[in-house]
Amino acid sequence: MKLKTKRKKNKGLNLYKEAKKIILGGNMLFSKKPEVWLPKYWPTYFSKAINTSVWDLDKKKYVDMICAVGQSTLGYTNRKIEKAIINNIKKSNMTTLNCPEEVELSKKLLSIHSWAKKVKYARSGGEANAMAIRIARSASKKEHVAICGYHGWHDWYLSANLKDNKKLNQHLLEGLNPVGVPKALKNTVHPFRYNHFEDLKKIVKKYDIGTIKMEVASRGKLPERNFLKKVQSFARKNKIILIFDECTSGFRRNFGGLHLALKLKPDIVMYGKALGNGFAITAVLGNKKVMAAAEQSFISSTFWTERMGYVAAINTLNEMKRIKSWNILIKNGKYINQCWKKLAKKHNLNIKIEGIESITSFRFMSKYNLEYKTFIAQEMLKKGYLASNLIYINIHHNKKLIDNYIKKLDPVFEKIKFLEKNGNVNRYLKGPKCQSTFNRLNN
Amino acid sequence: MKLKTKRKKNKGLNLYKEAKKIILGGNMLFSKKPEVWLPKYWPTYFSKAINTSVWDLDKKKYVDMICAVGQSTLGYTNRKIEKAIINNIKKSNMTTLNCPEEVELSKKLLSIHSWAKKVKYARSGGEANAMAIRIARSASKKEHVAICGYHGWHDWYLSANLKDNKKLNQHLLEGLNPVGVPKALKNTVHPFRYNHFEDLKKIVKKYDIGTIKMEVASRGKLPERNFLKKVQSFARKNKIILIFDECTSGFRRNFGGLHLALKLKPDIVMYGKALGNGFAITAVLGNKKVMAAAEQSFISSTFWTERMGYVAAINTLNEMKRIKSWNILIKNGKYINQCWKKLAKKHNLNIKIEGIESITSFRFMSKYNLEYKTFIAQEMLKKGYLASNLIYINIHHNKKLIDNYIKKLDPVFEKIKFLEKNGNVNRYLKGPKCQSTFNRLNN
Repeated sequence: MKLKTKRKKNKGLNLYKEAKKIILGGNMLFSKKPEVWLPKYWPTYFSKAINTSVWDLDKKKYVDMICAVGQSTLGYTNRKIEKAIINNIKKSNMTTLNCPEEVELSKKLLSIHSWAKKVKYARSGGEANAMAIRIARSASKKEHVAICGYHGWHDWYLSANLKDNKKLNQHLLEGLNPVGVPKALKNTVHPFRYNHFEDLKKIVKKYDIGTIKMEVASRGKLPERNFLKKVQSFARKNKIILIFDECTSGFRRNFGGLHLALKLKPDIVMYGKALGNGFAITAVLGNKKVMAAAEQSFISSTFWTERMGYVAAINTLNEMKRIKSWNILIKNGKYINQCWKKLAKKHNLNIKIEGIESITSFRFMSKYNLEYKTFIAQEMLKKGYLASNLIYINIHHNKKLIDNYIKKLDPVFEKIKFLEKNGNVNRYLKGPKCQSTFNRLNN
Repeated sequence: MKLKTKRKKNKGLNLYKEAKKIILGGNMLFSKKPEVWLPKYWPTYFSKAINTSVWDLDKKKYVDMICAVGQSTLGYTNRKIEKAIINNIKKSNMTTLNCPEEVELSKKLLSIHSWAKKVKYARSGGEANAMAIRIARSASKKEHVAICGYHGWHDWYLSANLKDNKKLNQHLLEGLNPVGVPKALKNTVHPFRYNHFEDLKKIVKKYDIGTIKMEVASRGKLPERNFLKKVQSFARKNKIILIFDECTSGFRRNFGGLHLALKLKPDIVMYGKALGNGFAITAVLGNKKVMAAAEQSFISSTFWTERMGYVAAINTLNEMKRIKSWNILIKNGKYINQCWKKLAKKHNLNIKIEGIESITSFRFMSKYNLEYKTFIAQEMLKKGYLASNLIYINIHHNKKLIDNYIKKLDPVFEKIKFLEKNGNVNRYLKGPKCQSTFNRLNN
């Protein structure tokens, strides 16, 4: 009876039931589906948020220890950025004329990327990815692309799965379904594994590759044995355009992309997520040569002229620079990692920690990893936390907040140790375990 | 000397010179390039705007008789919509959880489209178009698409030009360059002309067409001889998915798409532009069958979870309904058409008026049409107007405003009559004529 009452109260889940009937896929982002975190109990919708706090539709407040996919490194509703946005909304978001802020942002981005000479913007990562591929293909005059990582929902990318539904398995989402993608694109996009340089060499030997597109840090993995330097030299030697997708990795370890810290020079780089601190803006930066080759390509969209995205990005960059936000993120991330390690040690649990400091996750070295992930979400939710095995750190995840979170996580880890010993986690899950397809994304 | 001084004062054009060096294509939307309106003299950038007034970077105020590509039918900076948006920004735009407004908007849109059962959103028209094609191909299991109209910058669409650079000539933009589009897509997309039913029949006879995608009113043209009904019957008979792209035509002649007024039932429809009154939001609505077929397709993007677009659309729809904005747009549009006709008659100029009432344009039946269009922009700019031969009416283009505009346009038409007689318009243009590639878009 207790359970039933609780479920009735969950306005969010009731709304999601309606949503699934009238929205294709139920919502807009795979990573925000309740099935991915805690099926049947996840609050699913928010009413308001600030810093790291989120309120659901039942007015219940949670401390957010997931923070979506990291689109707000400066915290939810950062007042400085919002003030600038609101001021600009009052002066109009879009007119017959362009907004000067698109030029201002370009200058700012180019000033931190000396290798890049031109910029173009979009409003989603998928679009930015499709745009980068268009630019690269214009410059290389070749269709074949080698990829490593997750690069969105567009045809060009999903076509990698046309050959074999498992081809993108190493690339984040198992079984990404290419239904509706034209078969004509079959065999144009070829995945290689991160840190497996020999994969790339094989592909280039077999196909006339014009472009390599990859995430600089594959989620969870960092470059080993000079992997990225080797890829860069190889691309240059073979006159292949090199694209780094830093939509996720950008502005978390330094001011700009990870490639800057690693002293790499791609031909094209993309940013998204953190760039607008929760407002839609994505950017494609390219060097002189590739951008010149793409000047004739038709790339144009009404809503890319929105002033809001540019104002958000300009003010986000200013604030990041002012407070050196990446240092705070690294510090917070390192601390949470230490705490997780200590806690696992205390309870004699075998966990593996992955990722860069500010996008960090842990995995239980157990066949019940997914069940434990679900169990954490279930137990922490009761204690007022949105939590899982993954966190996109923002600047407000400070020592005090993390200490409190760890205090609440301590008995959950203790219970997991008990469950691991007794192998009966499913008896303690009130609903089904979270979707396994998302597993790769986090682990 | 006078000219030189004036040009120095144009902060906008100076900024555009910089922009062309650092932004691919110079800006984000083809229709907002100064070359499209008045090369070398167009103010190009705005600082603020309200209703129909726009201020440039030199703080000069203009009455906007173009209104961009019609993304604000309720006027720039509509206070009601803005207030709602600002309230929601203060409560956060994006978190780990979803925003309930995406469900609320879906209910609203479905309630005015009884044939549609599910919705999906994006943030640009190009994306919505790519999404609709993905959905249609998932349902039809066929790659071939017949198209009529303008449908964005994505690969699937531009591929129509791979065969022959002129293939999209009848479809808005001459010579849309398919550079960077994979040749593998060649021969998958086939254009047919509006009001030419026989074109479509030929294409379907030749190719295994699974989808027809078209604008309901091709800019400037309305259906003749039951064209759309014929297309609909033909699509049903041949089990072809019918998509209406109403990104431009929606919410201007009635509450919803033109197809509703014409009592047509497509399988998929897209909206954009007017839907958010100047804030980025696009929607794809589909019937039960097609949306069920696409449920397995991977379509997902972080920035589609922004609350702002949904709040903008909900409040725009509410306000449109409250004031029956389409009636105001039709009234204003009809009045401007009458005035143009009268003025042309007065000066014995041969003009052709085209378009639906609220997206209306005129063309001089002269080989100097483009020069006269440029001349109008040049002369009206001096008088404090952003004007051309095309207007996307908003509700603030009332009788008084139009009367004032016509008073200013009167001597310009008089001069054009003089120039037409003497054939020396180029002597009176201070800069080059506007780009001819845009000609099709307006005419």
